[in-house]
Amino acid sequence: MFEQLGLIGCGLMGGSFALGLKRAGLVKRVVGYSQSPATTRKALQLGVIDEAASSALQAASGCDIVLLAVPVAATEVSLQAIQPAITPQMLIMDVGSTKGDVLVAAQRALGEQIGSFVPAHPIAGKEMAGVENADAKLYQGCQTILTPTGETRSSQIQQALQVWQALGSRVVQMSPEAHDAAFAAVSHLPHLLAFAMMNAVTGQPRGQDFLALAGPGFRDFTRIAASDPKVWRDILLANRQELLVQSRHFQAQLLAFEALMAQGDGVALQALIEQASAARSQWQSRG
Amino acid sequence: MFEQLGLIGCGLMGGSFALGLKRAGLVKRVVGYSQSPATTRKALQLGVIDEAASSALQAASGCDIVLLAVPVAATEVSLQAIQPAITPQMLIMDVGSTKGDVLVAAQRALGEQIGSFVPAHPIAGKEMAGVENADAKLYQGCQTILTPTGETRSSQIQQALQVWQALGSRVVQMSPEAHDAAFAAVSHLPHLLAFAMMNAVTGQPRGQDFLALAGPGFRDFTRIAASDPKVWRDILLANRQELLVQSRHFQAQLLAFEALMAQGDGVALQALIEQASAARSQWQSRG
Repeated sequence: MFEQLGLIGCGLMGGSFALGLKRAGLVKRVVGYSQSPATTRKALQLGVIDEAASSALQAASGCDIVLLAVPVAATEVSLQAIQPAITPQMLIMDVGSTKGDVLVAAQRALGEQIGSFVPAHPIAGKEMAGVENADAKLYQGCQTILTPTGETRSSQIQQALQVWQALGSRVVQMSPEAHDAAFAAVSHLPHLLAFAMMNAVTGQPRGQDFLALAGPGFRDFTRIAASDPKVWRDILLANRQELLVQSRHFQAQLLAFEALMAQGDGVALQALIEQASAARSQWQSRG
Repeated sequence: MFEQLGLIGCGLMGGSFALGLKRAGLVKRVVGYSQSPATTRKALQLGVIDEAASSALQAASGCDIVLLAVPVAATEVSLQAIQPAITPQMLIMDVGSTKGDVLVAAQRALGEQIGSFVPAHPIAGKEMAGVENADAKLYQGCQTILTPTGETRSSQIQQALQVWQALGSRVVQMSPEAHDAAFAAVSHLPHLLAFAMMNAVTGQPRGQDFLALAGPGFRDFTRIAASDPKVWRDILLANRQELLVQSRHFQAQLLAFEALMAQGDGVALQALIEQASAARSQWQSRG
């Protein structure tokens, strides 16, 4: 389907995309670039890329498909860098967890070439970042959100659809605004809460003693607190408007729980927990 | 080691204890009682108990070991019920997630017989409650906290230690106060936050659409939100004093994140996330 993939950012997400595409026989050759030369070298040694480029522009030159897999705040500068290599036939995608800011960055960097760019967000990941954890199956069974606009060429949208489906992903299309509102609620808010919770525990004099007693509930709840700090710094900032709205919804619910606890109102407290427990059980059974 | 176990509460925790004890050859016979006759029948049918009792008192009569595995608010009434059957040699334990309130309940219900009672909290569980999910291996590899007081007889403390170790558990002793402070931080607070987060999402007009997009991070973060509402109603109320303290620590951290997001201070935000991420990674590597 494609001759050459230009991979900008050879980490877990980008490396897994390259491996998955090769495994599916969808690309013949992968040229990769990471900001850190050590990462680019490692990707080459691991066979994730076939050739190491010394710049994003060099990685994108002559490619018919380009993937940006960089922290979202690096989207604009990355697109600017590859801009001279862009052709009308090229499919360009990202994998960022926010979409409104990515679209603005793309409009600024690409101008009239924006038609080649299909913003994408595969809902996949691992605790362990880095190209050494890249996995051809990372995107199998996950959802991938595409947020094309009226300017995106339909041929590129079709190709994007086929690529992610070939990787085993279910593809959903929506607007960047709908995407960012939804992920503020079900992804960015949980990350924010997990970060704040970890810092709340470790910031106490007896924090380390407390942590030594933590069990499997704590383990699962805080798993996402170990996420990559740069990636999440960018996400929390890029989507802060929606995220602050979600945080206010959350704090209102937390205060409702606290009020019932303070009043000792077991009946109403049980009703609130039942609501949460039932919603989570229903969600679970759909998975 | 024991002739007869009296099991008050034949759910996941109690049923697993009975199966584990039998499997380890530590008890010859198990007599069980649950408030719901259907549960007691099911426990009998599944072979978790050998005989169904029609009251807690009947279940405890003639036993040398008794386990209470009921929501913590039911501790006092359960101990009152079995009080006429208690002998000085009997080992009585609970499995409650709070210990300060359990101790007060035991002091009220048992009076001078309190020496037989060793409060216990095994840090184990499953999403799926109920005797049908009871598992002889549930306590393998977990920590169990014992919170005996100066009144607890040392022979009973020794027996309790041996029982939980025989089930594969690492045993830690601490005061009820230290237990409740620690578990407010690393267990009760995460549950409270997960409940409030679920209700915050589902309480919004587009909540169901949002949930349809949730991925593996959300799945793990909210797993504990599906916990048993009656059990958690009791825990949130019993330990509310410590839990409200922990919730205040958490809210202060959350506000610190929000302030940096609002200011667009990426450097300081990244530092906060790095602190959380490093703490979680270090904790992980100990497990």
